[in-house]
Amino acid sequence: MTNIINTKRINQITTFLKSLNIKSKRFSEIIETQNISVIQDFNQAFIHSSEDKIINYEKLEFFGDAVLRLAASNFIEKKYPQLSVGERSELRAQIVSDEWLTKLGRKIEIDKLIIKGPKALGDENSKNTIIGEATEALIGAVYKCFNSIQEINLWLDNIWEEDSEQFLKAPYKYKSKTVLQEWCQSKGFDLPVYKIMEVSKKNGDLKRFSCDIFIEGLKESSAFGKSHKQAETNAARVLIEKFITKGKI
Amino acid sequence: MTNIINTKRINQITTFLKSLNIKSKRFSEIIETQNISVIQDFNQAFIHSSEDKIINYEKLEFFGDAVLRLAASNFIEKKYPQLSVGERSELRAQIVSDEWLTKLGRKIEIDKLIIKGPKALGDENSKNTIIGEATEALIGAVYKCFNSIQEINLWLDNIWEEDSEQFLKAPYKYKSKTVLQEWCQSKGFDLPVYKIMEVSKKNGDLKRFSCDIFIEGLKESSAFGKSHKQAETNAARVLIEKFITKGKI
Repeated sequence: MTNIINTKRINQITTFLKSLNIKSKRFSEIIETQNISVIQDFNQAFIHSSEDKIINYEKLEFFGDAVLRLAASNFIEKKYPQLSVGERSELRAQIVSDEWLTKLGRKIEIDKLIIKGPKALGDENSKNTIIGEATEALIGAVYKCFNSIQEINLWLDNIWEEDSEQFLKAPYKYKSKTVLQEWCQSKGFDLPVYKIMEVSKKNGDLKRFSCDIFIEGLKESSAFGKSHKQAETNAARVLIEKFITKGKI
Repeated sequence: MTNIINTKRINQITTFLKSLNIKSKRFSEIIETQNISVIQDFNQAFIHSSEDKIINYEKLEFFGDAVLRLAASNFIEKKYPQLSVGERSELRAQIVSDEWLTKLGRKIEIDKLIIKGPKALGDENSKNTIIGEATEALIGAVYKCFNSIQEINLWLDNIWEEDSEQFLKAPYKYKSKTVLQEWCQSKGFDLPVYKIMEVSKKNGDLKRFSCDIFIEGLKESSAFGKSHKQAETNAARVLIEKFITKGKI
């Protein structure tokens, strides 16, 4: 039973939550009081299913996914009211992505809190996935304190702002497939053909899938990725960078 | 300029919002006062882009999508705490789907409020899509009254409860592709092969795509749909119903 929490664990969680530096008075107060049911919710956000099949972060993660999406929509509307719906949608996909969550999780060092069972402990490939998932669960748990996205926006808006500026400066790095498709259309070519191979069966393996891109029947680039989508995006990015170098774009 | 609202329109919107029968005192009060900026938000939820390229429901719809997802997650957690994360995810996909939104939109007769330009007025195919989109925008506008999903849950929980019971009783009707895949695996067959053809270019056309399903090389069923996904789901459902009739499932 991992949900019995001793004083050391309570203090560890409290210190971690303070380190998030969420500028909300009511959130600071609720942490300060060390309310046991609140702390238990947070504790659950850090427990992987390999440690406990019942009490783990999965349900909070499912909830956190929806919270994150709403908070990101809210951020975009406040910060970038001039963006079209299509642009909002592309930006939102970036700032709620699994990669983004893992990056955030690394930044806040959530792995220090995560409790895994023996099976996941030895598995290097799943490490980043678990960091991202626990971070999403943490977002779910923060929302639940007051059933409000206010604390999420107070916490994440500044981080999102930096990431959004990066994205809006060089969107081709992120939405390579769209850029490549538009390039083909502008040249009157057929759409690019993506061929995917599963080269490993390991979940989380960054080289699990390989993707070749063919333009007008010619293989123009290849790349790996941990999912179909990631391999395709990587191969498209490689190709766009090649085109930029050659002055074709 | 469709965002200048006369008294007749204000009354029409107020009457419509009352008819939703959302059991929230603060929501009733805010409608009763006919606060112009609130009414303007709602008015925008009913304006299609064919009427006004700038002031229309698209941004509210984008926002409403995230609101709906969070409110549905909240509903599922309260009502079906026993469901696994996989089951929650399947159920949520159903109760936030485009089809579900269109069904809700028809029920509340949102089309009486929708303002379209000449191009969309004549287009029967886009009618259902627009009803669903405006309904999603309306959900966004209701959230914005208090930045809270509370009113959404007060409005939709009973409707979701009925729909969820239907879904949980006969999930194969909704997740036909999963059921078909599992059936193939249980028989030791290869996975079903879906072949898609675009038979019409009309957006919203219910017969835009056709899908054939092949099992072990034999064509076993065909169906139409307005999207790839819809055509595949329809063809899988036809096939499962055929298997049930023949006693194969």
